Amino acid sequence: MPEPDPTRRVQKWEKRKSQLLSEHRIFKIREDNAVNPRTGSEHKMVVLECPDWVNIIALTPDREVVLVEQYRQGSETVELEIPGGMMDPGETDPVITAVRELTEETGYTGENAHKIGECFANPAIMDNRVHTILVENCRLTNEVQFDAGEDLVTVLVKADDLPQMVKEGKIRHSIILAALQFFALEN
Amino acid sequence: MPEPDPTRRVQKWEKRKSQLLSEHRIFKIREDNAVNPRTGSEHKMVVLECPDWVNIIALTPDREVVLVEQYRQGSETVELEIPGGMMDPGETDPVITAVRELTEETGYTGENAHKIGECFANPAIMDNRVHTILVENCRLTNEVQFDAGEDLVTVLVKADDLPQMVKEGKIRHSIILAALQFFALEN
Repeated sequence: MPEPDPTRRVQKWEKRKSQLLSEHRIFKIREDNAVNPRTGSEHKMVVLECPDWVNIIALTPDREVVLVEQYRQGSETVELEIPGGMMDPGETDPVITAVRELTEETGYTGENAHKIGECFANPAIMDNRVHTILVENCRLTNEVQFDAGEDLVTVLVKADDLPQMVKEGKIRHSIILAALQFFALEN
Repeated sequence: MPEPDPTRRVQKWEKRKSQLLSEHRIFKIREDNAVNPRTGSEHKMVVLECPDWVNIIALTPDREVVLVEQYRQGSETVELEIPGGMMDPGETDPVITAVRELTEETGYTGENAHKIGECFANPAIMDNRVHTILVENCRLTNEVQFDAGEDLVTVLVKADDLPQMVKEGKIRHSIILAALQFFALEN
């Protein structure tokens, strides 16, 4: 078997056309025509245009992490996640979004909010990034302020228990798992 | 501030209506009407119906991992990922999909393919699961067989270097980061 050519690099695909297909509450769908540089052939690719998302590792003084339980319509299951949400129009700093979402969803506020990681939600079909913000010394200081479409329950777990919970499938949202990996790499 | 009620549990939302909005090559879009049990009000929720996805940690005898570089239309960037793909119609065992995708995308084959983790791609808006399969003793044995819409380059990296690469943002697909966390928890 010939070894792959180590000098070959993947090229960007040329976008020949792009059209909006539909608009939904939390994303738009567009279709791009792009050219595969390997073959020269044109392909239609569907892309979801989404605002950036933010999720939050909220750490208490006792090294517990604030999780939220919520029903998810995609999976039709109740999922254990970390708090998070979309960056609102006009919000350009994900730290601002994180502090807002943490307070709204859980009533917790903390100190030293800072970004510990960034990834793409799903670069194959979505254009948005997900920012993970760590907030320290979090305490329950406010009433929750749920959106009309939200119903959450706050759960505190020891930070040290998170890896075992992931292994046991108790936390199973890929984007949350990515955030927990950024957190693990901080320690 | 009153402490949250530790006995409260999030309830499943009742689905009152569900309709197909559009069909695309790799997913369908439907809209559900579901009732928030906290408020009793009905909400429209958009869901992407997708086949399950599989991704693969392919480990060589020298503990290198087979990565693939590919252009992604969602992010419009070249991304470094692990091999993976959709379960084909009729494929019910993700291990079968993994072995097929690994060979097609990289030409590598191995031994002892087995599942090390499972998560939801994005339970908020997608209904599908992602299965992570570990394949051991992988060697280059076949020619690659790219789909018409694929152009990939294989890259080998030391398994021990993966956490640092994640920290430096060299691997930034959330679903791949979830897979790498399942792999890290194996060791």
